[in-house]
Amino acid sequence: MESLLVGVAASAPADLVEPALGALTSGGKRLRPLLMVLSARMGEPGREDLLGAATAIEVLHTATLIHDDIVDRAESRRGAPTTVSRYGREIAAATGDYLFAEAFSELARIGDPRLVRAFAEASVGLAAGELEQYRANGATVEVEAYLEHIRKKTAGLFKAACVAGGTLGGLSLVQIDALASYGQALGIAFQMSDDIMDLVGKPGLMGKGIGTDLVEGTVTLPVIFALREGDAARIRRVLADPSPTPESLEAGIDAVLATDAVARTEEWARDETDAALEDIGLLPDSPEREFLESVASEVVGRDA
Amino acid sequence: MESLLVGVAASAPADLVEPALGALTSGGKRLRPLLMVLSARMGEPGREDLLGAATAIEVLHTATLIHDDIVDRAESRRGAPTTVSRYGREIAAATGDYLFAEAFSELARIGDPRLVRAFAEASVGLAAGELEQYRANGATVEVEAYLEHIRKKTAGLFKAACVAGGTLGGLSLVQIDALASYGQALGIAFQMSDDIMDLVGKPGLMGKGIGTDLVEGTVTLPVIFALREGDAARIRRVLADPSPTPESLEAGIDAVLATDAVARTEEWARDETDAALEDIGLLPDSPEREFLESVASEVVGRDA
Repeated sequence: MESLLVGVAASAPADLVEPALGALTSGGKRLRPLLMVLSARMGEPGREDLLGAATAIEVLHTATLIHDDIVDRAESRRGAPTTVSRYGREIAAATGDYLFAEAFSELARIGDPRLVRAFAEASVGLAAGELEQYRANGATVEVEAYLEHIRKKTAGLFKAACVAGGTLGGLSLVQIDALASYGQALGIAFQMSDDIMDLVGKPGLMGKGIGTDLVEGTVTLPVIFALREGDAARIRRVLADPSPTPESLEAGIDAVLATDAVARTEEWARDETDAALEDIGLLPDSPEREFLESVASEVVGRDA
Repeated sequence: MESLLVGVAASAPADLVEPALGALTSGGKRLRPLLMVLSARMGEPGREDLLGAATAIEVLHTATLIHDDIVDRAESRRGAPTTVSRYGREIAAATGDYLFAEAFSELARIGDPRLVRAFAEASVGLAAGELEQYRANGATVEVEAYLEHIRKKTAGLFKAACVAGGTLGGLSLVQIDALASYGQALGIAFQMSDDIMDLVGKPGLMGKGIGTDLVEGTVTLPVIFALREGDAARIRRVLADPSPTPESLEAGIDAVLATDAVARTEEWARDETDAALEDIGLLPDSPEREFLESVASEVVGRDA
């Protein structure tokens, strides 16, 4: 699949080859293709179609990251400059649109309308979610609005990966439904875990999180909890300031960590993971199912 | 179809309903849906699928206009403020992405992978063409580069409309090929005609063209010809100046009109139209074919 991703970039129009290559090979975890392949191998997928679809979902995911970074004016992602900061808005926009179209082009080659449907539905959600960054602006962000947002922005593509995989594997509708629920719950847990890491840092790495969400004014689930229970004024100050001082940012992070917001978010993420594990309990016992189970445990239980 | 377009806007996420509605109902000529419907009715299309696909191509076209206007920072289109100038970059980007995804979502409902392929291929071309505005910057734009650009930016979607229509009508591959060639040639002629109108004004309306392409530094076919034969220095001055004075702009337009650039472009457009007419000569005689013929004549021969 890595070589197919390079191929997608290589066949781009001349001006887009380098930005597309950079975006597609910048160290993504390939989690969505992994979910698709594991889901598919619960049945008997055609090798070539599966490779093509797995490539397509990573290409689609990359396209949305590029567009998000344009809207957010983000400078870096995964420790490297974003496409927009490196090549400017015009090239970045065209690269995103190109990759988006390429993803559907690849699906058209496979020729199964159910895959197109899964990808298109996820894309509609992604576009809708682009806007809803839930900036603070003094307004209270409700948990339900946050959940709605991450369902669209993160869980939708996880779900599409599992549905497309199950479809390519020729699984039954009941089994595909189970995979869909698994993917959705896993995506929610994944996003919550990501929100936590922004505050407490990655496991195994020294130091605290970098508070990017707080700086960008994005109200995540732990921040919602902390605003209710902790030093809301201090947290709001960071949310409202697009370039807080390091001291102010650290004070904001500390204010969140002084509450049980992270623990409550972890608990919620664990509940989602449990639901995901229950969902795939409906699928036949197999090495792939075990792998899907361990993916779910990895996502949340950093103690796992 | 108009009510389906309104439906697409109405079912958008709350923040996007108004911008999507504005963009979808801003007085487009619906030329691409018309081509699709006429192509389809050469055979026997299913009514509902045809309506859905015709809606999808207009939605896709609208999405690309919105994205183009973001990249070009365009203030107005069809005499109204653009989505980006009215709602800002974030909303406009999300609206474009939403409409793009909705177009494929609609195609997924129809379930014919050949339609997905036609739309996806056109979209890849559109994304590639976004960049290639062939700004002057002192460099000479070659005719071949111009043609390559308008094949992607304009002709690709005309072709997709005809191919999708022929497919839905159940036409033979030979007939669909003829429609594809017709659509491509028509799209090229259409764009050349558009380039001319930017210089000489619309037929039936008083006054000259408004020279938008010159102001934006876009080197169109008549401008390429005029740069070779006319007062190149004066034309380049306008191309290089993002906000020329009305006098300087008029001098630039006059410098183009002083050559036979417009006549040569008209001739080229007529050749393309002739090719288009020849292509559909392969199709059975019918009211739809006659209509397609008159569309081709209308596009170029403003004397027709």
